[in-house]
Amino acid sequence: MTATTPEKRPISIGVDAMGTDQGPAALVEGAARALSSGANAAITFFGDESVLRPLIAQHAVLASADVEHCAASVAMTDKPMHVLRRGRDTSMWKAIEAQKDGRVRAVVSGGNTGALMAVSRMQLGMIDGVDRPAVTALWPTPRGRVVVLDVGANVEANEKELVTFAIMGEAFFRALTGKAKPSVGLLNVGAEELKGHDLIRNAARTLREADPDMAFIGFVEGNDISKGSADVVVTDGFTGNIALKSAEGAARLVGGWIKEALTASPLAKLGSLLMIGDLKKLKEKIDPSSVNGGVFLGVNGVVVKSHGGADAKGVASAVSMAATLVGKGFRREVSETLALVRARAEMTPPAGAIKAAE
Amino acid sequence: MTATTPEKRPISIGVDAMGTDQGPAALVEGAARALSSGANAAITFFGDESVLRPLIAQHAVLASADVEHCAASVAMTDKPMHVLRRGRDTSMWKAIEAQKDGRVRAVVSGGNTGALMAVSRMQLGMIDGVDRPAVTALWPTPRGRVVVLDVGANVEANEKELVTFAIMGEAFFRALTGKAKPSVGLLNVGAEELKGHDLIRNAARTLREADPDMAFIGFVEGNDISKGSADVVVTDGFTGNIALKSAEGAARLVGGWIKEALTASPLAKLGSLLMIGDLKKLKEKIDPSSVNGGVFLGVNGVVVKSHGGADAKGVASAVSMAATLVGKGFRREVSETLALVRARAEMTPPAGAIKAAE
Repeated sequence: MTATTPEKRPISIGVDAMGTDQGPAALVEGAARALSSGANAAITFFGDESVLRPLIAQHAVLASADVEHCAASVAMTDKPMHVLRRGRDTSMWKAIEAQKDGRVRAVVSGGNTGALMAVSRMQLGMIDGVDRPAVTALWPTPRGRVVVLDVGANVEANEKELVTFAIMGEAFFRALTGKAKPSVGLLNVGAEELKGHDLIRNAARTLREADPDMAFIGFVEGNDISKGSADVVVTDGFTGNIALKSAEGAARLVGGWIKEALTASPLAKLGSLLMIGDLKKLKEKIDPSSVNGGVFLGVNGVVVKSHGGADAKGVASAVSMAATLVGKGFRREVSETLALVRARAEMTPPAGAIKAAE
Repeated sequence: MTATTPEKRPISIGVDAMGTDQGPAALVEGAARALSSGANAAITFFGDESVLRPLIAQHAVLASADVEHCAASVAMTDKPMHVLRRGRDTSMWKAIEAQKDGRVRAVVSGGNTGALMAVSRMQLGMIDGVDRPAVTALWPTPRGRVVVLDVGANVEANEKELVTFAIMGEAFFRALTGKAKPSVGLLNVGAEELKGHDLIRNAARTLREADPDMAFIGFVEGNDISKGSADVVVTDGFTGNIALKSAEGAARLVGGWIKEALTASPLAKLGSLLMIGDLKKLKEKIDPSSVNGGVFLGVNGVVVKSHGGADAKGVASAVSMAATLVGKGFRREVSETLALVRARAEMTPPAGAIKAAE
């Protein structure tokens, strides 16, 4: 541990370094990058010590990092139930266990999402009043990153769950960015009140009653996400996952076309040379690394899922996010907002929207 | 009517020229562009004659176009039910009626989607065996355009409807492109058989049994659409609409960033001048006009919905598509494929998947 003044003590982050597509080197290098770029964190790696030690030794900034040796790791193809039953010696399990025991305050993992969710729920439990967790995604817009949830924790969400997602997502955005009143929108097929499922229309009404303090802007459509029309976009995990991946696919397609155009002719190549600095900035904007890191909202802890294919830069974003969320007291923010909404519903039975929706 | 040999007789297309965001001029100019670029069509415009005649007079290629005067038009905000009850003198109604009466063989409209669907269903009826229509979207990929359906005719689709969408979408793609065995994928959140809704998993199984001749490749994810992993991507109208709009939003975001990069500095501006030809090609690729035109599959006719905000180029794509679909016998293709699948299901009762799914 690095010695600092108590109020600036580094936040201990557990990094599950195994079970990703990119291999442990990306996790180790990513954690090193996060520290180099100023993340206030102390890292504990979970995984095969004989693999991790030589990798860690390559980064001076990781001199004080810890390693907890784990004999096994979770494979991408492992079923969550299998991991719950037989995965107690895996790096994923050990990392979450360390958070439960208070040895780390957040965990970053690039492993099997379903297993990470199951292990997190089992060991950390859920925040009071939350039945199902939601996974967040950061989405780039001209106005900065917005948050979309759920992007895949559950394929379905009922009315009450959508309302809970909205409350958690708003608190998450507030903790991450410091914005006092983030705007919240419900993803739908039309902006008019009449369109879309009954479920979403009911959720909109319930949300207005349950949390009148929220800057709820009603329905947003798919194209509104990239415009930044809402800071927080709420949907079920099936729709959110498909929206996110469809958008990623489209961005990648356009990115490929740009590359083609820039090298299509000798003149184009010469032109690209002239604008090389500006093109580099463009490339960084499109780079998915900057938005890597999905947070499991509703779980009673801080668990950040890094993309299984994320490179060191992407891992660095996820580690920095974990440190920011702990530093900003995000868990408390979520629990307190939920408790407040619940208390209000109980005090005003006729408009007790969340209860009525059960 | 232009006089030609019988087998190359122009296909009569009705164009509802009213009720769009862009106004009648875009519809008239679009139809003219379609003819100029070789579409084998004879146009009849439906709308306000005093508005349309002067617009038509501006295009020599429209010298033989007809106009059917209509006293009213459908507004974007009109409820479909209102149009069904009181819309008989609107340009939309008259255009679809002309198709019912055989005076035109296809209709292109940029008006109110819900009303167009309702009027089409009421007047033209549905193809035998189809309960609900689906709207198609063309989606650009590096391998050419693919078809996604449903993108918004219905917010929900049951198992049988998804199977019907797949069969209709495949026939549509075959008619549009001439490809004998288009590949078909079901949109889902994961490629593994275990992920996603029961509904989609069941639809996959039913589809395999119902139409073993189809090149069904199983599940595809959101990012697979832009890759061109399947020629036809099948989903419900809610999910399809959100996938399409999320992707459009992301493409527009990246497009905006490109524009910024190309003008960010004097050097960048100079560079863009050098590659102006290649950038123009890039712009055309990103241009949504080239993929304008959603077809109402399942309706017993050929109805092409042009985007309400489409410019003349976009309208031209929609008019050309209408002519191609009639020319290639797309309605017969759809009905015959559906009849074949139904006949097979009836002949083999134990594996009578479509029936069992009802």
